[in-house]
Amino acid sequence: MSMYVVGHKIPDSDSICGAIALAYLKNQIGEAAIPARLGELSPETAFILDKFGLESPEFKTSYAGEEVYIVDHSELTQAPDDIAEATIVGIVDHHKLGDLTTSTPLECWIRPVGCSNTIIKMMYDFYQVEIPQNIAGIMLCAILSDTVIFKSPTCTTADIKCVEALAEIAGIEDFKALGMEMFKVKSAVEGTPVRDLVMRDFKDFNMNGELVGIGQLEVIDLSVFDDIKEELEADIAVMKVEGNRHTMILLLTDIMKEGSELLVISDNEELTAKAYGKVTENGRVWLDGVLSRKKQIVPQLQEVFA
Amino acid sequence: MSMYVVGHKIPDSDSICGAIALAYLKNQIGEAAIPARLGELSPETAFILDKFGLESPEFKTSYAGEEVYIVDHSELTQAPDDIAEATIVGIVDHHKLGDLTTSTPLECWIRPVGCSNTIIKMMYDFYQVEIPQNIAGIMLCAILSDTVIFKSPTCTTADIKCVEALAEIAGIEDFKALGMEMFKVKSAVEGTPVRDLVMRDFKDFNMNGELVGIGQLEVIDLSVFDDIKEELEADIAVMKVEGNRHTMILLLTDIMKEGSELLVISDNEELTAKAYGKVTENGRVWLDGVLSRKKQIVPQLQEVFA
Repeated sequence: MSMYVVGHKIPDSDSICGAIALAYLKNQIGEAAIPARLGELSPETAFILDKFGLESPEFKTSYAGEEVYIVDHSELTQAPDDIAEATIVGIVDHHKLGDLTTSTPLECWIRPVGCSNTIIKMMYDFYQVEIPQNIAGIMLCAILSDTVIFKSPTCTTADIKCVEALAEIAGIEDFKALGMEMFKVKSAVEGTPVRDLVMRDFKDFNMNGELVGIGQLEVIDLSVFDDIKEELEADIAVMKVEGNRHTMILLLTDIMKEGSELLVISDNEELTAKAYGKVTENGRVWLDGVLSRKKQIVPQLQEVFA
Repeated sequence: MSMYVVGHKIPDSDSICGAIALAYLKNQIGEAAIPARLGELSPETAFILDKFGLESPEFKTSYAGEEVYIVDHSELTQAPDDIAEATIVGIVDHHKLGDLTTSTPLECWIRPVGCSNTIIKMMYDFYQVEIPQNIAGIMLCAILSDTVIFKSPTCTTADIKCVEALAEIAGIEDFKALGMEMFKVKSAVEGTPVRDLVMRDFKDFNMNGELVGIGQLEVIDLSVFDDIKEELEADIAVMKVEGNRHTMILLLTDIMKEGSELLVISDNEELTAKAYGKVTENGRVWLDGVLSRKKQIVPQLQEVFA
């Protein structure tokens, strides 16, 4: 039996960098741990690991009989398919409390902050373990990604202080410039198959028994989608049917204008009117100031489904 | 909207002392919080509060529209009945992860240690808040109660170190003597109505859709039950029917002999044979070395029900 540290399906930078950072910490305190991932790296995450010279975690989908430390969620739909046959020994997360349960005591480091890596930094502090330069670098990038360089309403003072401390450890002078460089990588959508774009940062949620799929693409300028928006809409319609989903939403987030256009296809035509006070027209609706799926999209939907 | 800190139904010393200790901490860091309880104090808890001159938390069963910080569990069956209408802002616990969920981010301080108050001490350390003498005293007693003065297999080095630190703050020289004094109070069962005894430390568990009620009485000498064992058995049979439960178990734990006699009534006659490798005879079975419901009773049952 080994202990694996693994984030959610369709891993984002927080899931990947968190798995690496937490596995390193666990090994330092005498608990052998292996970082793992449930899916392919996004271009953003590949850029981060390359920048700091770290290897991608092991690709592994089955965890039966193993110990698992979950990063960045507490939801069955986002966990390994055979998680019921594994032993969950811990969870580090910054989302709402999901439906994962265990049959034995575990540790949970869950905080209402902007990024799991901010909490992992607290764990390093708690265990008084020094963070290596390159790991501090990827943790910092994960936080800048999740908080949209501090612009997201999910960003807390704990995240900002954490980035400042990590920048010092990693020897990064201008972390905002690094953040913009990262978001430029994220904004490059040309030539990428439409399905890959929809799936790049995609999560399924169980909302009162209905399956709701929500993808998000954060870019520096929404005009990159002008030529492919109709293809994206056609593809989420297909995914709605394929996955037997009640609703599919794709957030096209403009991090400079600080808002999101939602592409919506749902069994409930009044969904966005009820959740966000704004009607979907021809499958599209612009929500000013909306940057965060976790804080500005999911809870409001959950209320409608309750 | 107020923030209440509240433990589980049929509160034990960990739930009550934890609510007081955590509410005090929250107030110190600028978050107004009120300690509350879902039921009557046990004689042990009353002894502890009296010893350190602290008031009982407010008795309050309805929390609709309020913020709630949950102490010592993460289970729907142990939470306030209207918890779905409240906002859970945090959980501090040392049990398996239960079925509570939230629609917004929260903080969870969950650790595989012997007592919630050990974790609350970590929270004081994290926030660098000084623990008053009397609160240190009740926290120490809660840990001695949950760990059966360090004898329980749930006891960890973190619990022991925590008690030592709290003893210094509270100015208690012989904490083991205090622990024995407390367990003597707990051992006094004469004159108490049978139902009150069964309910003194009672928890309902949802095991794969079946309701399983498990009570525990920890005493210094099991002979105190000689005259009332048949009455206890009759009463758990009544409670099984009343509550539409699959199984009722009452643990009579001898903390000096370090083992428990289980009084069992279940729809599955082979339950203890399957869970603990020992057959129930005439509704009774002795399990040597078993002191902990959480670690030595519940997970094994859960396996059988899975």
